[in-house]
Amino acid sequence: MEDLQNTRRTRGRRSQVDRSPATSPAYIRLSTPFVPQSVYSSDRIAAIHDGALRILEELGIKILLDEARQAFKAAGARVDEDSQLVRIGREIVESALATAPRSIRLKAANPAREQDYTLGSMLFMAGAGCPNAFDRERGRRPGDLQGYLDTLRLQQSFDVIHMHGPSVEPQDVPLQSRHYAMMRGQLENCDKPVFVYSRGRQQVEESFEMIRLARGLDKDAFANGVWATTVINSNSPRQLDVPMSRGIIDFARAGQMSIITPFCLAGAMAPITISGALMLQHAEALAGIALAQISRAGAPVSYGGFLSNVDMRSGSPAFGTPEHIKACIGSGQLARHIGLPWRSATGAASNLADAQGAAETVMALWGAVLGGATVTVHAAGWLEGGLTLGYEKFILDIEALQTIAELTKPEAADDDALGFDAIAEVSPGGHFFSTAHTMERYKAAFYRPLVADLSNYGAWVDAGSKSADQRATDIWKQTLAEFQAPSACHGVEERLEPFIRSREDAGGAPLED
Amino acid sequence: MEDLQNTRRTRGRRSQVDRSPATSPAYIRLSTPFVPQSVYSSDRIAAIHDGALRILEELGIKILLDEARQAFKAAGARVDEDSQLVRIGREIVESALATAPRSIRLKAANPAREQDYTLGSMLFMAGAGCPNAFDRERGRRPGDLQGYLDTLRLQQSFDVIHMHGPSVEPQDVPLQSRHYAMMRGQLENCDKPVFVYSRGRQQVEESFEMIRLARGLDKDAFANGVWATTVINSNSPRQLDVPMSRGIIDFARAGQMSIITPFCLAGAMAPITISGALMLQHAEALAGIALAQISRAGAPVSYGGFLSNVDMRSGSPAFGTPEHIKACIGSGQLARHIGLPWRSATGAASNLADAQGAAETVMALWGAVLGGATVTVHAAGWLEGGLTLGYEKFILDIEALQTIAELTKPEAADDDALGFDAIAEVSPGGHFFSTAHTMERYKAAFYRPLVADLSNYGAWVDAGSKSADQRATDIWKQTLAEFQAPSACHGVEERLEPFIRSREDAGGAPLED
Repeated sequence: MEDLQNTRRTRGRRSQVDRSPATSPAYIRLSTPFVPQSVYSSDRIAAIHDGALRILEELGIKILLDEARQAFKAAGARVDEDSQLVRIGREIVESALATAPRSIRLKAANPAREQDYTLGSMLFMAGAGCPNAFDRERGRRPGDLQGYLDTLRLQQSFDVIHMHGPSVEPQDVPLQSRHYAMMRGQLENCDKPVFVYSRGRQQVEESFEMIRLARGLDKDAFANGVWATTVINSNSPRQLDVPMSRGIIDFARAGQMSIITPFCLAGAMAPITISGALMLQHAEALAGIALAQISRAGAPVSYGGFLSNVDMRSGSPAFGTPEHIKACIGSGQLARHIGLPWRSATGAASNLADAQGAAETVMALWGAVLGGATVTVHAAGWLEGGLTLGYEKFILDIEALQTIAELTKPEAADDDALGFDAIAEVSPGGHFFSTAHTMERYKAAFYRPLVADLSNYGAWVDAGSKSADQRATDIWKQTLAEFQAPSACHGVEERLEPFIRSREDAGGAPLED
Repeated sequence: MEDLQNTRRTRGRRSQVDRSPATSPAYIRLSTPFVPQSVYSSDRIAAIHDGALRILEELGIKILLDEARQAFKAAGARVDEDSQLVRIGREIVESALATAPRSIRLKAANPAREQDYTLGSMLFMAGAGCPNAFDRERGRRPGDLQGYLDTLRLQQSFDVIHMHGPSVEPQDVPLQSRHYAMMRGQLENCDKPVFVYSRGRQQVEESFEMIRLARGLDKDAFANGVWATTVINSNSPRQLDVPMSRGIIDFARAGQMSIITPFCLAGAMAPITISGALMLQHAEALAGIALAQISRAGAPVSYGGFLSNVDMRSGSPAFGTPEHIKACIGSGQLARHIGLPWRSATGAASNLADAQGAAETVMALWGAVLGGATVTVHAAGWLEGGLTLGYEKFILDIEALQTIAELTKPEAADDDALGFDAIAEVSPGGHFFSTAHTMERYKAAFYRPLVADLSNYGAWVDAGSKSADQRATDIWKQTLAEFQAPSACHGVEERLEPFIRSREDAGGAPLED
């Protein structure tokens, strides 16, 4: 209770100075200020690209969905129906790369939150797909609808999160109607670009219908804008399953965005070298991009990579390791080689929101940033390599994202900012507190930390010796307590209710696998 | 006890695979693989440089040491003895920049640990100058000789620390003989380039004499190599005190290296804008470099900056903030503008080795790396903005430094590394565990974490649910328990003993202020 009061006082002070990091318009649209880095020479990037084309052409990719194999066959690929292997000639890939858009406008309930998804933009998504949730008050527990809604509201509350995603899996909702609850959660609480799982044709089509109902769009208006995004994971190595193949086709035909994301673990489901794993990732991503473009030329599709190594002691996926950072930078080189926007990811293997978890996420975040990622997924809240979404970890990671976001702001260096006169005014050994140069700027001079506590040791002990994750508890609780759905969501519940009731009465929609 | 056994087992496994992060020769000499980033356009960097020259020329810098003012006067500067202000014409600065060396070979007891201090090299120093020490077993306490020796031994034990520094201040040793204990600690336990405090002419000369005795150097051999480094802090704004001025002169004359490091806090002792604070920093650094070159043309001297902002809530120095990162990158631009190697710093304001502390240090570390810093000081162990050296924080930060060090290794991408044949060998949906490509490489494939625990939640709970800082306790204890002085230190104690005893008998050497 005292913690909550402290938080309130802090937030009160914050609003007195008219500046809250949570709702800074400066974080809504970001462009990277960094020159992308490289780990490979451009000729080796060309060799990796060429090797990926050779994998597709000579070895092929196994595609479990009949319709997808037929589409590739019609486009000229060699299909072996017994093995389900599809060998994709380089001319098919090259044709796909020629029609895939370089820039994709992501629509949102709030037009101010639309995004240009393109190389040079810098977007962040929260940790997604977690079967469990954790917070310091309730401990670790299987994900449920309340956790799903809590984390959506946290996503909505911080401008530095640019696209919504399913942070916590609502395992207490039956699978055949889970998509109603998940879409409803986003559409009633959130005004940023939304996410749709590719879990079967009927679920996807019903999800699109809920977007149209909620946002008041007719079929044409929906088809002419990118209102939904899905993530497509291949089953590395060289395999695309039924719901993923179906998702690529259905999203492409509907003009909605697929983010093709092989999840290649070097040393397990991919070669042990980062360059070899990148070549496999690249082949699988190109296959997905090709399927999207075959389904509809010009369909919005994103290159993607989520490549790290396995830890040799535990066999677990590693995050923020040198190999992960190199993979992020190398993926960015490949994305620029083909000219497409791309998705990276950060994350943490740590079981706690401790120093390890922070270092893992921040290291990998820099990998994504220096790789020039268009969107960085799992950027807030991941613990245990994504098995758990941590509420405190979410808040701590928001601080890191806000730090990166602040770096996108141009830094004033005109003569007035340099302040020669202020320097002349202050005697040697003096201070600048009361110069006009300082007084004019101090209110907005510096980033104001969300959760970092910079008070000295004595003051920190007097305030209860709280660790960063303890302070983060106060912040997520206060954020959720104060949450109000944005105005773009008013009336959505009423518009969705009849549709969902009728579909629930009909038994919901099946998963596809 | 069980912890220690775990650590032993872990270390045992590590040596079985013949690979220990602590003693990887790959970390001994590092070159940055990164393209330096920019926060200012090159014309604004030129404007900041020009503004700094104007500060020196028109406003001047107050220099408290008579000898230094006289040296500047002899070089053509305008000196006002009443105010002690020295106005330094730009021709004096330009002449100094023409003679300051671009590359400095730092000598070490172990020739394998010598370093080329130049733009493009990437060196790390541990947290330095801390009046307190902290570890999870003994808590927070005033720094003492044991803490000083412990942290030197930790520095020596990890190859990613490239130069020694005084992590913990041995406050239990009287000031007039503290330099004997501090030099002895380094010379008897360490074989990397050593540090000498500029605390007065006699202390500095005696410290040089101890280096000569310990390393078996005659006066010429010492004078012809850079065997000692000191850090010179100006008293911002625009002031250089007696011991710092004396240090610059004495190190320059002795051919030893000064790292000129204004500590400018934007909004307190420097202008509130990062660009204005950089202009002040640059002026003060140029004044120090000029004094070194006036004292002896060609003297080894480093540009340096330690610029961050004050936290507007607490008034404390901030680390890892957007402003700190921008200042690091901007300092790097200024260093490249004048062509000199430079020193940056990371650090943390956190009172604990928690998620805040990790994020602060890693964020600032990337600022230094992307600024192209030659050496990054305070890179391991700083807590409370440098008021405390944390043993666990030291270990955790070593992991971050080793991660950066791994990034300097070229990543194989030849056809053999790409492994097309391995990809051909594995069926769709299969795994690479048993391919020849994996078997040939798995032992040395990935960075092996020092303290990060990637085991899954159940295994982690079974092992005691330890946070990263708890695991770090085991590691520093084991490292100190196993410590052995390197062979280059054999016989040093006997060589130093008579000198120190005779100087102690004579009452030691005074500080200078």
